[in-house]
Amino acid sequence: MTSSSPAIDAPEIGAALSGLRAQPPLVQCLTNIVVAQWTANVLLAVGAAPAMVDNPREAAEFAPIASGVLVNLGTPYDDTSDAMTAAASAAAAAGTPWVLDPVAAGGLRWRTGLALELLRSSPTIVRGNASEIMALAGGAGGKGVDSTDSPEAALAAAQEIARTFGTVVAVSGPVDHLTDGERTVRIANGHPWMTQVTGVGCALGALMAAFAGSADPLTAAASATAVLTVAADRAAAVSQGPGSFAVSLLDELAALTPDSLVAAVRVA
Amino acid sequence: MTSSSPAIDAPEIGAALSGLRAQPPLVQCLTNIVVAQWTANVLLAVGAAPAMVDNPREAAEFAPIASGVLVNLGTPYDDTSDAMTAAASAAAAAGTPWVLDPVAAGGLRWRTGLALELLRSSPTIVRGNASEIMALAGGAGGKGVDSTDSPEAALAAAQEIARTFGTVVAVSGPVDHLTDGERTVRIANGHPWMTQVTGVGCALGALMAAFAGSADPLTAAASATAVLTVAADRAAAVSQGPGSFAVSLLDELAALTPDSLVAAVRVA
Amino acid sequence: MTSSSPAIDAPEIGAALSGLRAQPPLVQCLTNIVVAQWTANVLLAVGAAPAMVDNPREAAEFAPIASGVLVNLGTPYDDTSDAMTAAASAAAAAGTPWVLDPVAAGGLRWRTGLALELLRSSPTIVRGNASEIMALAGGAGGKGVDSTDSPEAALAAAQEIARTFGTVVAVSGPVDHLTDGERTVRIANGHPWMTQVTGVGCALGALMAAFAGSADPLTAAASATAVLTVAADRAAAVSQGPGSFAVSLLDELAALTPDSLVAAVRVA
Repeated sequence: MTSSSPAIDAPEIGAALSGLRAQPPLVQCLTNIVVAQWTANVLLAVGAAPAMVDNPREAAEFAPIASGVLVNLGTPYDDTSDAMTAAASAAAAAGTPWVLDPVAAGGLRWRTGLALELLRSSPTIVRGNASEIMALAGGAGGKGVDSTDSPEAALAAAQEIARTFGTVVAVSGPVDHLTDGERTVRIANGHPWMTQVTGVGCALGALMAAFAGSADPLTAAASATAVLTVAADRAAAVSQGPGSFAVSLLDELAALTPDSLVAAVRVA
Repeated sequence: MTSSSPAIDAPEIGAALSGLRAQPPLVQCLTNIVVAQWTANVLLAVGAAPAMVDNPREAAEFAPIASGVLVNLGTPYDDTSDAMTAAASAAAAAGTPWVLDPVAAGGLRWRTGLALELLRSSPTIVRGNASEIMALAGGAGGKGVDSTDSPEAALAAAQEIARTFGTVVAVSGPVDHLTDGERTVRIANGHPWMTQVTGVGCALGALMAAFAGSADPLTAAASATAVLTVAADRAAAVSQGPGSFAVSLLDELAALTPDSLVAAVRVA
Repeated sequence: MTSSSPAIDAPEIGAALSGLRAQPPLVQCLTNIVVAQWTANVLLAVGAAPAMVDNPREAAEFAPIASGVLVNLGTPYDDTSDAMTAAASAAAAAGTPWVLDPVAAGGLRWRTGLALELLRSSPTIVRGNASEIMALAGGAGGKGVDSTDSPEAALAAAQEIARTFGTVVAVSGPVDHLTDGERTVRIANGHPWMTQVTGVGCALGALMAAFAGSADPLTAAASATAVLTVAADRAAAVSQGPGSFAVSLLDELAALTPDSLVAAVRVA
């Protein structure tokens, strides 16, 4: 479905940020050793409360009381991957929204299988780059990772996954493409330095889990993307390189108001 | 016991910082994947030497040669929790001071049991927020986590743990409360941004392990708290948000002199 | 062998940086929980692509397709150490250059044994401080960790390891000493704040793995050392302490040009 007005508009995104600030979500993160600190700091800066409960003895116990759950496959081990499958199942059973970030799916066999298994636990949102989303679609019986990774091809794969699994799929890139299988939202903010700081995409998945606690999945994915990329625009304007950019990004996430977000987001 | 002069005064805190700088302590940290880098950087900035030896094959071997040991339950796994219990026992047996940070105790069953088990290995200092300390007291037979979490209630729980286990208990908050069961020290420095950066409390536990290598437990806990919160006051004055605050906090920890610490600490 | 011109000269180092930027290497990092984020950010800032594939189910699968592999013993566990030995063997078999960073070898028995075992998988480069390198030489039958740790003693140990195992050995310090057993390169850039930020040495090992993808081992080790220490000189000039230094170091790594590198490196 296409239309002249976007499926999610800027005021809806601003309202989602107001809602998050009014009732800070508790976000359980099962993520990787590279970005765990950064992810927690991004969540705190926006106004959410991170809880990094990622061991198999506690993950399923916590998911029902979290506002949202992030499962990120960056550095999976036997114990943490057990925790991930348990948390995803518990979240799905309890109605807790959860986000799957299939890091490097397609490029490595074990985690690709793990990502496909997790996909069957009804993630609320799947977030990845074009290659990862296309790999998931290929593994699920559709196009493979070898197909061209143009935005259009990734969008088709995203729509296929969205429809097959009843989820929202977010494809990160210079222009972020988000789809629920019917509607598609494009957000055109952001800066190349986002790719020179590890974990910016991983933190985006965590923000989606934060917003999914109070907004519908497509609005949550769009709001998280808008907040991170608009803050990135502002941070880049006052930074000298990727190091100072990462620091300023946290400052700008904390300073961002719903009004300035609405004014700056480029959504279509 | 109450008195008009504090149990630990500012000059004693200044002397502890001078002592740490004169003989840098080697601090073994068994901590979590979220804050490991930050904790090491805080220790280095102050002038201590971190050693993140947290596997079960080496943890007990290292504890006797460390100046102090930190055991932090942020993201425990089967292997690292084995390392923690072994390091705690080895530290206690060797007379190495050690600090227990029972992250999220009370909210999750497995780690609450682990925290209570560790409490029986004679920690030198227990550091947590009001809820964690009250949960430990409840699990040890006293008040539970469901009791009101006012500072007074947490202080009573802290005193109970301190007396029962012969330890110093530090309750972090806008005003930090530290007690050995008889004497109570209150430190009123710090800034709200400390709660918007992950791991500031975890780093405080590590600093307590650093100071405990050369100062008595209550002085060590008070000195660590004073150093971190005074540096935070200074960092906040030159920062734009939680990102730049975290960076400046490391700079200010490195720049802090005993004299400026004595002048700025608000201890009662 | 000594000579009036250095074994690797500044223009060769500048050319190596140009080469890395022209064809960004994919660097597999099996490293520790303390420095994983920092290491990835250092690689990204320079222009390399990090891939933190460190579990035993995937490590050996990935090593043959990586440009270079880093094996760092900072916080080894049973599962990650299995991944390290598998990745090292796979790298050696596939001809992928790999770097061994034997963190704390000598001071702890298990990891010292692990380091010596890994040494037999033909690392392209071994990077450590004087104590670590001397411990490896001692464990390999030469001088022990108890011998004096002057630069001269460490250099002799480094040359012995280099000749015995056919590797390049880099000894980090105020002046870095690099040797292939015959030729020795000394690089005299850098700043004391490098020792007040955790993981600067660990990141140096990762940079060596990045450069080893396209340069010979001694040139790779020298180029990585030059890039990091020259960027550190520049970062220190604009920083207030170790916190802002770490941030500026990433900015300066990204901004460093081959020409300014050639002009600033002090190589002998």
